[in-house]
Amino acid sequence: MYYIGIDLGGTNIAVGIVTKEGEIVKKTSVPARAERPFEEIFADMAACIARLLNETGIPEGEIASIGIGTPGCIDTEKGMLVFAGNFKYGKMVNYRDLMAKHYPNIPVYIGNDANVAALGEVRAGSAKGMRHAIMITLGTGVGGGIIINGEIYEGQASAAGELGHIVLVQHGEQCTCGRKGCWEAYASVTGLVRQTKAAMQANPDSIMNNTPMDQVSGRTAFDAAKKGDKAALAVVDRYEEYIAEGLADMVNIFRPEVLIIGGGICKEGEYLLAPVRKYVGEKAFGAGLLPEQKIVVASLGNDAGLIGAALLHA
Amino acid sequence: MYYIGIDLGGTNIAVGIVTKEGEIVKKTSVPARAERPFEEIFADMAACIARLLNETGIPEGEIASIGIGTPGCIDTEKGMLVFAGNFKYGKMVNYRDLMAKHYPNIPVYIGNDANVAALGEVRAGSAKGMRHAIMITLGTGVGGGIIINGEIYEGQASAAGELGHIVLVQHGEQCTCGRKGCWEAYASVTGLVRQTKAAMQANPDSIMNNTPMDQVSGRTAFDAAKKGDKAALAVVDRYEEYIAEGLADMVNIFRPEVLIIGGGICKEGEYLLAPVRKYVGEKAFGAGLLPEQKIVVASLGNDAGLIGAALLHA
Repeated sequence: MYYIGIDLGGTNIAVGIVTKEGEIVKKTSVPARAERPFEEIFADMAACIARLLNETGIPEGEIASIGIGTPGCIDTEKGMLVFAGNFKYGKMVNYRDLMAKHYPNIPVYIGNDANVAALGEVRAGSAKGMRHAIMITLGTGVGGGIIINGEIYEGQASAAGELGHIVLVQHGEQCTCGRKGCWEAYASVTGLVRQTKAAMQANPDSIMNNTPMDQVSGRTAFDAAKKGDKAALAVVDRYEEYIAEGLADMVNIFRPEVLIIGGGICKEGEYLLAPVRKYVGEKAFGAGLLPEQKIVVASLGNDAGLIGAALLHA
Repeated sequence: MYYIGIDLGGTNIAVGIVTKEGEIVKKTSVPARAERPFEEIFADMAACIARLLNETGIPEGEIASIGIGTPGCIDTEKGMLVFAGNFKYGKMVNYRDLMAKHYPNIPVYIGNDANVAALGEVRAGSAKGMRHAIMITLGTGVGGGIIINGEIYEGQASAAGELGHIVLVQHGEQCTCGRKGCWEAYASVTGLVRQTKAAMQANPDSIMNNTPMDQVSGRTAFDAAKKGDKAALAVVDRYEEYIAEGLADMVNIFRPEVLIIGGGICKEGEYLLAPVRKYVGEKAFGAGLLPEQKIVVASLGNDAGLIGAALLHA
């Protein structure tokens, strides 16, 4: 049997046929054009599935399920999007019914995008075979996915795993969620850019200032640090400690076998991981007495969501 | 069938016969005298069981299992204490083998004391019937128990649930675990006493100063606050916010159906809970959009551990 995975993003929709082992047989994508009615978006998704089946010669009867990873707040039991900011009709949309119009004989499952990415990494990526795993994705915010006994942990209303929204500094930086001092406000790329800009202003001699202020990105400080720039080294060190502080919380709470870091920052590889591991080792409970956890970067990149969605109930 | 539950504390050992519904048929206790060899401690526990069986007339064949709740780091699969600070021979002690010498025909299970207390509250206490629950116990430290799908979540090496050791203030107050700024350092009774003493020194006119400095307890600020003392009201308000800050983290991470607060502070009841609920409501993610969780005080008191231990595999 094969599994259809769909990664429904705000910009692109990726659709793929996946094996039980998490290998992508074939994939395709179309622009989401999220301002459209959902019926049109689902017609596009169904057309992608039809094309993939046609091109691979896999009969519809060989498809065990269709899994959809989506941003927003969902009701997995009903297969429904409850609320999402980035779709025009983003309230109370039943994905399962919409897909059933095109493929009435195939079960449809949905999952939160951060959760299915975590599942993808556990089934086929850098955490393959692990039972208990925590994935964080560092981007505009800090996304989270909790894997317990090899399955997504969703909590009440499928709303668990908002791992970016744990406090790091009580009454600290304003977070987008309304609270102050969240981990996300410090460990997201948005936070890193803010920290980089502040260091540039405070250190006019830093080579970070070769980058115009409006072009500062998550790379600016890392690139300058690798050239030995002291102000940049301080930014990177502090940023790594911010990441580690929240990861140590995850260790103390979940004692997982593996912590997975996703997002563009993964490209820094061991340059990022080595100091993060050191800080986590210092901050986690019972250091030296308890088995350690692996800390790895995600290996599936943009495919994690597609693969995880495909294998939601595989 | 009936279940034996044992709450093995550093001071006392409580032993009871429990029904599947979590009702205590009969219980007894003996001093732990934890400085003794474990063989003697287990002989005492076995004698307690024999006496309870004799007094209730329940035959040994009616006992489905013996569950032991213990402090320290454990290996539940092997039924072994790996490490505990408060027992003389607190390293690598196989509880299962020690009990099997007395009751070879009854399966023996072990659990961490904070975890079995949480299980007790979910099976028979203030969170009865809930699937996803988080319990914190406010005392010398902040203990934690995680219940997922009605069962204890243990993580790697049974070491999950160190909920007091998540950061509240990065680089803040020194915590006993070696890290700085842990929730425990602020929300434990130890933290409250420290905050109370600081407020007494800063506010010589406060009626809190009627209590001698060396007799300050977790009640001092609460008692004075109820009499309208402004400095005490400020201490209590800040302490409630500390509690709520970590509980909001638990909501965002687990989105549980219920948060249970245990420890002596429970006696404050709604006087404590109402402000804590308000703060959690303000700080939790997606307030107003997502189903809320209950916040309750533990109802089983010292029996929670005994009942939870009894029902570890019931």
